[in-house]
Amino acid sequence: MNISNLQKARAAYQPKLPAGLRGNVELHEGAPTQSVGDQDKIREQFPNTYGLPLVDFVPTDAKREYEAINLGVILSGGQAAGGHNVICGLFDELKRQNPNSRLYGFLMGPGGLVDHNYVELTADVIDRYRNTGGFDLIGSGRTKLEEKEQFDKGLEICRKLGISAIVIIGGDDSNTNACVLAEYYAKINAGVRVIGCPKTIDGDLKNDQIETSFGFDTACKTYSELIGNIQRDANSARKYWHFIKLMGRSASHIALECALQTQPNVCIISEEVEQKNMSMNDIVEYIAGIVCQRAADGMNFGTVLIPEGLIEFVPAIKKLIKELNDALSCDEETEEGKEKAAMLAALTDEELVAWVKKSLTAENLATLESLPEGVQRQLCLDRDPHGNVQVSLIETEKLLSELVGKKLDEWKEAKIYNGKFAPLHHFFGYEGRCAAPSNFDADYCYALGTSAAQLVANGKTGYMAIVKNTTAPAEEWRAGGVPITMMMNIERRNGKDKPVIRKALVELDGAPFKEFAAHREEWAKGVCYIYPGPIQYWGPAEVCDAPTRTLALEQA
Amino acid sequence: MNISNLQKARAAYQPKLPAGLRGNVELHEGAPTQSVGDQDKIREQFPNTYGLPLVDFVPTDAKREYEAINLGVILSGGQAAGGHNVICGLFDELKRQNPNSRLYGFLMGPGGLVDHNYVELTADVIDRYRNTGGFDLIGSGRTKLEEKEQFDKGLEICRKLGISAIVIIGGDDSNTNACVLAEYYAKINAGVRVIGCPKTIDGDLKNDQIETSFGFDTACKTYSELIGNIQRDANSARKYWHFIKLMGRSASHIALECALQTQPNVCIISEEVEQKNMSMNDIVEYIAGIVCQRAADGMNFGTVLIPEGLIEFVPAIKKLIKELNDALSCDEETEEGKEKAAMLAALTDEELVAWVKKSLTAENLATLESLPEGVQRQLCLDRDPHGNVQVSLIETEKLLSELVGKKLDEWKEAKIYNGKFAPLHHFFGYEGRCAAPSNFDADYCYALGTSAAQLVANGKTGYMAIVKNTTAPAEEWRAGGVPITMMMNIERRNGKDKPVIRKALVELDGAPFKEFAAHREEWAKGVCYIYPGPIQYWGPAEVCDAPTRTLALEQA
Repeated sequence: MNISNLQKARAAYQPKLPAGLRGNVELHEGAPTQSVGDQDKIREQFPNTYGLPLVDFVPTDAKREYEAINLGVILSGGQAAGGHNVICGLFDELKRQNPNSRLYGFLMGPGGLVDHNYVELTADVIDRYRNTGGFDLIGSGRTKLEEKEQFDKGLEICRKLGISAIVIIGGDDSNTNACVLAEYYAKINAGVRVIGCPKTIDGDLKNDQIETSFGFDTACKTYSELIGNIQRDANSARKYWHFIKLMGRSASHIALECALQTQPNVCIISEEVEQKNMSMNDIVEYIAGIVCQRAADGMNFGTVLIPEGLIEFVPAIKKLIKELNDALSCDEETEEGKEKAAMLAALTDEELVAWVKKSLTAENLATLESLPEGVQRQLCLDRDPHGNVQVSLIETEKLLSELVGKKLDEWKEAKIYNGKFAPLHHFFGYEGRCAAPSNFDADYCYALGTSAAQLVANGKTGYMAIVKNTTAPAEEWRAGGVPITMMMNIERRNGKDKPVIRKALVELDGAPFKEFAAHREEWAKGVCYIYPGPIQYWGPAEVCDAPTRTLALEQA
Repeated sequence: MNISNLQKARAAYQPKLPAGLRGNVELHEGAPTQSVGDQDKIREQFPNTYGLPLVDFVPTDAKREYEAINLGVILSGGQAAGGHNVICGLFDELKRQNPNSRLYGFLMGPGGLVDHNYVELTADVIDRYRNTGGFDLIGSGRTKLEEKEQFDKGLEICRKLGISAIVIIGGDDSNTNACVLAEYYAKINAGVRVIGCPKTIDGDLKNDQIETSFGFDTACKTYSELIGNIQRDANSARKYWHFIKLMGRSASHIALECALQTQPNVCIISEEVEQKNMSMNDIVEYIAGIVCQRAADGMNFGTVLIPEGLIEFVPAIKKLIKELNDALSCDEETEEGKEKAAMLAALTDEELVAWVKKSLTAENLATLESLPEGVQRQLCLDRDPHGNVQVSLIETEKLLSELVGKKLDEWKEAKIYNGKFAPLHHFFGYEGRCAAPSNFDADYCYALGTSAAQLVANGKTGYMAIVKNTTAPAEEWRAGGVPITMMMNIERRNGKDKPVIRKALVELDGAPFKEFAAHREEWAKGVCYIYPGPIQYWGPAEVCDAPTRTLALEQA
């Protein structure tokens, strides 16, 4: 393996471990917990893993013997920087407890457990992946562990390998499923415990117990580096408006964090759009208004940050999409549905668009027709395998800049605006998911892995490993575990009531949004850009070790 | 000004200055020089600045008094990391020579000289821009200094401000014009000298005297960081082909350098495409062949680097574009041309496409029709203000992936290929032009600025500041000046013979391309990805101070 100079030097980095995780620990247990909602229903579905206490680790000088155990680890879902360090932390603590313990990695996600694809992770392999980005050590995948059959297949391989615990590193859904698995194995006395770890760049897995999910720090810093570079370019060339879309699924945490780091002229927050019941036209007029004001001040340039999930938060478009999905759905189990499917399949694209338009209510038709023609066609024609509109295919950054351009043309006609509008487009996502972890993510993940190993060693199941007090120096972080059921409520998913970990959207009364809202007018008018630069691994602590602004504001 | 922690810490960085530029220097002059081509014609056009000797600076202990002078500086053309450090080097050396000397910055490019827009650069301003990216200190612009009127207007403001020398920081064209200006001021005994500095991220301003242009190092390292991150993602998710277009105008230096830094599965080099007379279909089959081979080995993922200028290097497309430009051009100074323009303007888009197709030769029509419909329409309909096809609007990365997808569909039909092909697209350009300069660019630019100040102090004009031996530690770099005429030849531009600095394309018998060509088959087949990570400013020298691979290979 030919590796870069940075990788060589970075391999030697020893993640900073909280005092409470160095060596042997004592478990402090709190009072029994309750789920955040629907307590009776959650208790009923998780009789063995409900109501468990919060757990804190406290350092101890007491000697303790650990028996050798075998442990499995799984990476689930999208990549996030630091995943390898969770595994390294897990490995180091496991071997510290007993050098005869073994760690197995299941390959390409939860599917590896079900299909019995695995590899033993030994020191020579682990050492090549310390402080590296990506999930390529064992790969990841999106198979959902939800069915009894999968659980039983998993148990087979655990028995064969003598595995007594599985650590699942994933987002909210993967951790929900980890708990379902923990409950099932507890119920049948399988002798296999299950522990989760909070991963996602999207930042939507957080609550009273989880301060942040790993990968968010590195992804936001990488995107902010690029946004800062683009802003410096905008302010040098003084002739382009940059529309920058940012990954992050539904929630706008990434866009908000990047805005706090870089102070762009505009940042749209989906949760605010929904709460204020804004239409596309409202958003377009908001942006165009700022373009117009800056033009009047001689600044025909600027930056606009757009969260990936925006379009589904615009209430009118949400309604339109719902009606489009209904109009085009065909229940192929009925005669009527089959006939409809055949009828639709026989139409040309033009005819299909016309048919869709005829079938829409006047309100939704007006919404559809307010969009550029290309987007209209996309909404009518492109479906996923379930027949649903593929909203993620819409290039929101281009859609918005096109609509803003049209609005400005109208305003020019009306003599309200007299500037130049030259838009450029960017989408950042894959650029940051697999970056080498920042010191924060490297340290945080290593501590999470160590914590997970301690939860296992102390016989816990249905817990997620957590690390708190993360805005203090790593030395002072506090590690422990939270019962996964504590974070659950019942939500309607695909027409069924399901127990799930509550997803965290941006809270409009939270400190990060309030900070943004307090400054955005000033940022819109001036050149308040901040240029964060690339992630640094060596150098002053305030450059290398600072947490995200979101975390700092939330924990302040 | 609210600045990032990185900026605060980085402001304290003292660029490493070659021994030969610390303090007073002695000038060593070589023999008279000749231009690289068309020597008689160049001599004839530059009687006052032709044939000057190369100049080296050698440190001396001799005391020397410098009189106070006023100096102007201009940033010309696209942004490149380090521009501010050239100005800082210039400022520091000027003030060292005589604290009463003054530095003026002309605003928003060469236009600032002509229009008399300027600002005095004082220590408090300069200190805020040390080691920062961007050109926002004084802005840049693309006004070309070519006309006597502009020169005379410039002289007016020089006289008013008592400026006796101008330093122009720009690419090949800007330096050509700097020499024309130097020649003119020399001819009329204006008492104003002109010195150039080699800037461009594109890397195409280099020759026997100029080892590299500044900004290339930082831009390539920033793009390589992102390509590395994407490759790590590709290798973790194992399901996407990433098509990545890279800025760099005509030449493929950036794509080649990024390929050497990251070892992607495919990198297309425009100069090779032209030399081998490859068609679009040849390129598409080359890429599809690699996709196919990797699929057979179970790897439905990979990366493809594409230089921005590719499409104009495909001989068949070059011919097509030429004929399109001819077919659609209307000489509005003739009756016939006016009639044609009116006729074309009256056509609908559909009619115009049909008319264009009818007017093409069979060969060019076949080339046009081999492209996706959207691109065909773009080529027929989108014109710049001069009536020319706007090749730069074509999203080559999407065009190629679409054609590769079609080819794979054919091969699937023919049972040659049986994989999955899911392409994603990226274009990197604005992300790297204004990044904070790497240590290399910070040091190199500071030395160039210092060198320029020495050339001025020693009465030189028509020179470009140079720094050589740049693969050695900065301490050992050698500074001096090269007569700009030495790098010139005559080229046909817009129908006229013009003296210009010869642009450097990728040489297929040069060390960088040979290194790439020797390894690309291995890179195509395997997972040889290198992940360079973000630019580092503190830490081990091999991480922070390494020059580009191109430079290292060329100077080896």
